[in-house]
Amino acid sequence: MPRGTGQPPTVAIHVVIDDVAGAIPDLAARVARAGGTLRTLSTTRRLEATAGPPGVELEIEVENLDEDALVAVIDGTPGVRARRLTRSLDRVFGKRVIVIGAGAQVAQVALGAVSEADRHNLRGERISVDTIALVGEENIAAAVRAVADLPRARMLVLAGSIMGGALSRAARELREQGVPVIALNMVGSITDAVDLVVSDPVQAGTMAVMAIADTATFDLARQRGRRY
Amino acid sequence: MPRGTGQPPTVAIHVVIDDVAGAIPDLAARVARAGGTLRTLSTTRRLEATAGPPGVELEIEVENLDEDALVAVIDGTPGVRARRLTRSLDRVFGKRVIVIGAGAQVAQVALGAVSEADRHNLRGERISVDTIALVGEENIAAAVRAVADLPRARMLVLAGSIMGGALSRAARELREQGVPVIALNMVGSITDAVDLVVSDPVQAGTMAVMAIADTATFDLARQRGRRY
Repeated sequence: MPRGTGQPPTVAIHVVIDDVAGAIPDLAARVARAGGTLRTLSTTRRLEATAGPPGVELEIEVENLDEDALVAVIDGTPGVRARRLTRSLDRVFGKRVIVIGAGAQVAQVALGAVSEADRHNLRGERISVDTIALVGEENIAAAVRAVADLPRARMLVLAGSIMGGALSRAARELREQGVPVIALNMVGSITDAVDLVVSDPVQAGTMAVMAIADTATFDLARQRGRRY
Repeated sequence: MPRGTGQPPTVAIHVVIDDVAGAIPDLAARVARAGGTLRTLSTTRRLEATAGPPGVELEIEVENLDEDALVAVIDGTPGVRARRLTRSLDRVFGKRVIVIGAGAQVAQVALGAVSEADRHNLRGERISVDTIALVGEENIAAAVRAVADLPRARMLVLAGSIMGGALSRAARELREQGVPVIALNMVGSITDAVDLVVSDPVQAGTMAVMAIADTATFDLARQRGRRY
């Protein structure tokens, strides 16, 4: 199943809670008993202990509960110090294009992708462009594999001058897990391991955004295996 | 407490599990009983039901358990279909600089930040640069507030030509929650609400990365309130 298709919406809440052993299991159990499913839990900050136990700030997202029901669950949970409803990160930052590779080329892909995302976000889309500049086949291959674990990642662009070996294997694995991959035209086996090859980095970033924007008519499936 | 200081490391694992009501609370309870604390849970993909119940792919990060202990917990949990140890996202993508604003300027800030992150990542740092181009005071203010809920966010750069009002309030709130803010020099009250004002977007991106890199000697606290 492609990622992000037909997912029910979540309700998000920021919670400050005592950082004790049973806190998270208790919270998850209470959400489940109310009929909800915990879909996301992020630990955003630790708070030092002053009088009582240390605290922790959590951002959680829950499916199948409305805001009032989730607030009631949180308010009934022992150890909760504060809570405020937030927007789920999906609604704020939306789908993510991930750009990985060498600094100079990552920056140019980002230039194209950010400019194109701007045009779609103006029309109601939510697309963000996230990058990391790395060196070394092993480092980059690990980052490519980790894209599968990133929430809301919908597309990877590989930006460099030579990539292959372990990196090509990682790209194939990622595609099998539902994240398409675009690569710049470059030296190495990577160009045979991806969905699309684009020579100009600005255009590669632009096409990456077009491919995941509902407001665009670009269909990556019809371009698979091509080189531009 | 500033974000990300002195946090114990986590062990990460990717799990495919039956997507049933009790799955997450049971998993969290088993982790806690083994002495661990669930710090991160992301739902990366839903799997359609074929014969049995639907499945779900989770990425989880746990503190206070080593890899063997966590694998033993997962292997003893009912409904688990597959698992593989991964690297925690902190180790792969590291600290995040978030750039929010208008497309043209976001792209230029990203250019500076990606190039500077490249230089530090070559020396063992892990800094990624994440962006979203948005329009409208309310949309941007919501995104600024949501940065507090983003895992690993260590710095925000506001890139635009006019920002103030609700956005300035959101920037002050974010700083109170431990995320410093750099703004471009621009029209509006935002330049009085941030830690540092920088006129050149490429330099703003560069300074943002320098301020969070352990491999740099730039101290934002000593620059607070200045304009460049």
